[in-house]
This record gives sequence, C-alpha cells and structure tokens, in this order.
Amino acid sequence: MNEKNKQILLVKRPKGTPDSDSFQVIESDIKQPENGEVLIRTLYVSVDPYLRGRMIDAPSYVAPFQLNEVIEGGVIGEVLESKTDQLNQGDIVIGGFGWQTYYTAKATEVRKIDQDIAPISTHLGILGMTGLTAYFGLLDIGKPKKNETVVISGAAGAVGSVVGQIARIKGARVVGIAGSNEKLQYLKEELQFDEAINYKTTSNLKDDLASACPNGVDVYFDNVGGEISDAVHAHLNKFARIPVCGAISSYNLEGEDVGPRVQTTLIKKSAFMQGFTVGDFANQFPDGTAELAKWLNEGKLQYQETIKEGFENIPDAFLDLFKGNNIGKLLVKVADISN
Amino acid sequence: MNEKNKQILLVKRPKGTPDSDSFQVIESDIKQPENGEVLIRTLYVSVDPYLRGRMIDAPSYVAPFQLNEVIEGGVIGEVLESKTDQLNQGDIVIGGFGWQTYYTAKATEVRKIDQDIAPISTHLGILGMTGLTAYFGLLDIGKPKKNETVVISGAAGAVGSVVGQIARIKGARVVGIAGSNEKLQYLKEELQFDEAINYKTTSNLKDDLASACPNGVDVYFDNVGGEISDAVHAHLNKFARIPVCGAISSYNLEGEDVGPRVQTTLIKKSAFMQGFTVGDFANQFPDGTAELAKWLNEGKLQYQETIKEGFENIPDAFLDLFKGNNIGKLLVKVADISN
Repeated sequence: MNEKNKQILLVKRPKGTPDSDSFQVIESDIKQPENGEVLIRTLYVSVDPYLRGRMIDAPSYVAPFQLNEVIEGGVIGEVLESKTDQLNQGDIVIGGFGWQTYYTAKATEVRKIDQDIAPISTHLGILGMTGLTAYFGLLDIGKPKKNETVVISGAAGAVGSVVGQIARIKGARVVGIAGSNEKLQYLKEELQFDEAINYKTTSNLKDDLASACPNGVDVYFDNVGGEISDAVHAHLNKFARIPVCGAISSYNLEGEDVGPRVQTTLIKKSAFMQGFTVGDFANQFPDGTAELAKWLNEGKLQYQETIKEGFENIPDAFLDLFKGNNIGKLLVKVADISN
Repeated sequence: MNEKNKQILLVKRPKGTPDSDSFQVIESDIKQPENGEVLIRTLYVSVDPYLRGRMIDAPSYVAPFQLNEVIEGGVIGEVLESKTDQLNQGDIVIGGFGWQTYYTAKATEVRKIDQDIAPISTHLGILGMTGLTAYFGLLDIGKPKKNETVVISGAAGAVGSVVGQIARIKGARVVGIAGSNEKLQYLKEELQFDEAINYKTTSNLKDDLASACPNGVDVYFDNVGGEISDAVHAHLNKFARIPVCGAISSYNLEGEDVGPRVQTTLIKKSAFMQGFTVGDFANQFPDGTAELAKWLNEGKLQYQETIKEGFENIPDAFLDLFKGNNIGKLLVKVADISN
C-alpha cells in the first residue's frame, strides 16, 4: 500500500483558547498488521471538550497528551485487513486511537459494533460515551423523580441534549440553558423541553431561571460551571443533586476559575455536587447501551449530529466546540465505508 | 413564685462579626403550667455556630430568628412542676426553648434524658446534636474505610473532635486542622489524631497537608469552608467524599464568599461534596445515640466541654465561638440541679 497514514500531533500546549498552532498534520507509513492485529481505516472521529483538559500538562482523570504524539480520542473505523480470528475484513470497530487516518490495532484494542441498531456514527454519540455520560450522570447521580425539575446547562450539546430527553422519559420537568435561539428552538420544538433559556441574551439569568423553575431545581446537570452554574445554585431545592459532568466555561481560562463558594448553599439545601466521568460506570456500560438503544428504537430518544467532512478539518472542528455553535454531537467524517 | 424569667432577645441583626449589641436581657413573668404542661428551669444552654445563620433574615435550612424574640437553641433543664403524667418533678429534659431561665413546655416539646449514661450536659454535646452531626456526617456521607485518610477542619471543635475519634474507631488515618498549638496538642495527645496542622501558623497549608497526607485525602469533613477547604481540595483522591457540615469562615463575611470554583476538581477526582444538617438523619437518631453511648462507655470516645457559668454570659459565650478559642463543646451553665 503506497498510501500514507496522516496523523495530527499536538505540537504546542494551548494557553487559553486553543488555536490551530497547537496542531500539525504529518504523514507516516502505514504499519502492516502482524498476527493478532488488524489494519483499520478511520471513518469518523469524535471531537469532545474533555480533550482540552488533556492538552495541558497537569494531573487530571486521564494522563495529559504528550507533545508531538497523535491526539487520542474516540474513532470509528473499518477493518481493511485482519490477522486475527476475532475480527474480519469489513467489520466496523470503535476504539480510542485518535486523530489518524489508519491504525494498526491489536484485536483487543477495539470493539466491533453492531451496524443494525442505528447508523454507525451513533456509537460515538448517543449509543457511545456521550449517551452513556448522560445516562449514568442523570440516572445514577441525579436520580430525577417524576415531576421534579431538572435543569441542564450546555443543554443543546452532545451530552445535554440526551440528558434532557432521558429526564423527560422519567417524567421530570426539563429546563435547558443554551447559547443561541436556534438551540432554544431545537430544545423546545424537537426535544420537547419544557423551557429553554438563552444565557447569552438574557438580562438576568437568575430571574429567568426563577420563572422557568417555579418549583425550584431538584437536579442540575452541570456541563459548564462558571457563572451559569452560580445562577442555578441560587434555585436549588432541599436535597437537590448536581451531577458535575463538565466545566467548559473554565477549560480555556488562563487564570484561576473563581466564583462564589458553594459550601453554604450545599448546607442550607442538604444538596450535593458529584463530579464524575463516564468511566466511573464502566461495569454498567452494557446495561446503559441496551436501554439507550431501546429508547432510540422506540422513538423516545432523538439525536442530532454535526458532521464535518475531511481529516484535515479535525482541529477546526475541535476549536468550534469552544465557540458554542454546534448542536448535538460533533463528529468529523474522514472516509466512507468501502463496502 | 416571685422569681422572674430572664430571657435574651435578638434585638439587632448582626452584620459581620456579631457583638453584644445584638442581644438584650429582659425579665418576664414565669408562666405557670397548665394541664399537660411542665415548668422547667434551665440548667445548661448550648451555643452553636449555626445560630449565626438564623440571626440574619435570609432563607436557610431553618427559619431566621424574629427580632425581639427569645433566641432558640438546645437547652437542658429540670422539671420543677409537672401537670402531665409523662414527666415528673425532678426529671431532666432536653428541648429547644433557648436562652431563658425558665420555660413552660407542653410535655411533647421536651424529651426526658437518661441521667445514668453520662453527665447530663453530654446530651447537648457528644450524645446530642453535636455527636449525631459528627456520626451521620462521617459515617453516612464520608464513609471512611480502614486505612483511608480523613481530614477534618475545625478539628478541635465540638463536632470535629468527635468526627476524628469515630474515624479512628473505623481504622482511618486522621488529620486535624485547628487554630492553636493547645488544640493541636489536644488532638494528637488526647484524641490520638495521626497528624494535626495549625492553619494560623503554617507558612503553607497546602504543603503541610501534603506532608500530613502522603496518600492523599479520601474524606474531608468540612466544618469551615473558605481557604482552608480550598487547600484540602487540592489533595483529594479519586472518589473522595466531602461531608459539608459548616462554613464558619463565611458566617461573618459581609461580602460574598468567593474562591476557586470546585467543579473541575470534583470532575477530575470523581469526588462529591454533600451538604447536610443533622436533621436529615432524624429517623436514625436512636441508633446513632445508642452507638455513641456505647463507644463512650467503652472508653473509645472522649469529649471535652468548655463550660461558662451564668445566664448573662450566654451572648459572650456565643461570640467566643467566632474567636476560635474553645476546645470541644461550648456550654453555658445556668443553674445547678436542685435535688
């Protein structure tokens, strides 16, 4: 095979908002598979806010990316050549091998996905880490009860849009916070959220939340942190639960993320904030995936994907995450399935 | 009876650190008991940091005190006269009737205490709300495991000193943070804490915590909030638990309590902060009291009381709480038992 493997390396750690200077595309030889290995061609690459955390060299829940190495992340690919009994040519697999057009994997490094449930890209989204993050964060930590009020920040994002729909399935009143009128329309008209608030155009988020949540807030699914979360905290009910999933408002801060301390609010409300990552629930993934697939097939769950085309556009797609323009899951399509 | 009932009223809501101007002693007639009632003479009054929160007119977990009303709070008294079958003259009772020398209560408003377990004052401390706060906050929220590290702020206070001892009973490594060398000595020599740190004299609390907690922090029992808690948060282990019991550092702040936001830390560590008040566990009080009494009788639990004398000194005792001088439970002795 004369074709080369294109790879995107992290060549500079971003300070503040990342820009394209942090990334470099290189070409390398494609490694032929040995016994027990498969050669995979990348079809879809997932770009996710959490990758920003791995671009700095600081302790986190996963190790930081090394400079001049390929950026890791969720990928769906097609097996071009197999030297293992466990996978066949043409199988569609998911793995974490990141921003490159080809990858030679041990069979155990990837997992074959079922192409019959839904389009394969959903395994990076609603049936993948994104959907599972929403599922376990809401149900295992937030535990919404019927008629309780669930507020979601980053509500039109990949995770938030699933959280709201699951909360509705559970009979909760759902209020989304998002950053454009297009997103508000999507939340209310497509996803049937009860209320949606545009934090960019509101004159007073706290007041708007009071109107949208006349019975207070029982569950706050926090994707963003910062001042939006401060405003939601003012409306917590007794025994409120806050799954803390992300803090995208802080990821590009150069200084310290400073705001009102939460202790007094938590005491007054006997409330809790629980940070989590989806990996905390790894032993329950099969159950979560099965229930998400069931809801998807029953038409109870919708999903939206923003799919950009072209390998070289992965860094731009990643940078777009911080502009707040995309709805639903953001993916880059790198190649078509060959068969 | 010609004697008068002395009462202390809240006459001015404190701003910032309270002073004696907020309180006024008055005399009123003693109300004679009717059928179903008892006349009680106050023996001990409990003074507690949480009362500060009730002195301001803002929503909290309990209603604010009304101006020109008697300040409520835990009291132990002696039944002088009974017009109910449920209580007899000479019984020692506990109730929430507050800062006054006499009180005429319905039998259901107070609870008879067992004088045989321990000195009666312990029912306001280690066998009362204080001990139960430590017990449920640590065991139901913090859930320390053997050999885990438990850090306690306000460690020499009424609650903190019990938390540390229970954590030791459970086999944890216990590190206390307190504000004087006398307190450190008490924690290490009397209560057998593994380490104790003086936050007032340390040159770098974060570094001292690192030395005292070589394996990180699994449970942080937070009595104080503020910068001390910020420093502890830097050392949390994966899946750390933070029972948030008090935030005394903020109670007298006139401005907003501002500091580093916690979301990113909680996510990185899959950690949680759970605010609580002891009333959240009301249906488990009998079990908690029984186990505390058992440990007390087995010599596994010690307690220290700082007892001031004289009804008129109640406000000063309360103000002392915010000077950080007392060790253990702070009480005011108002009268001796008559029998």
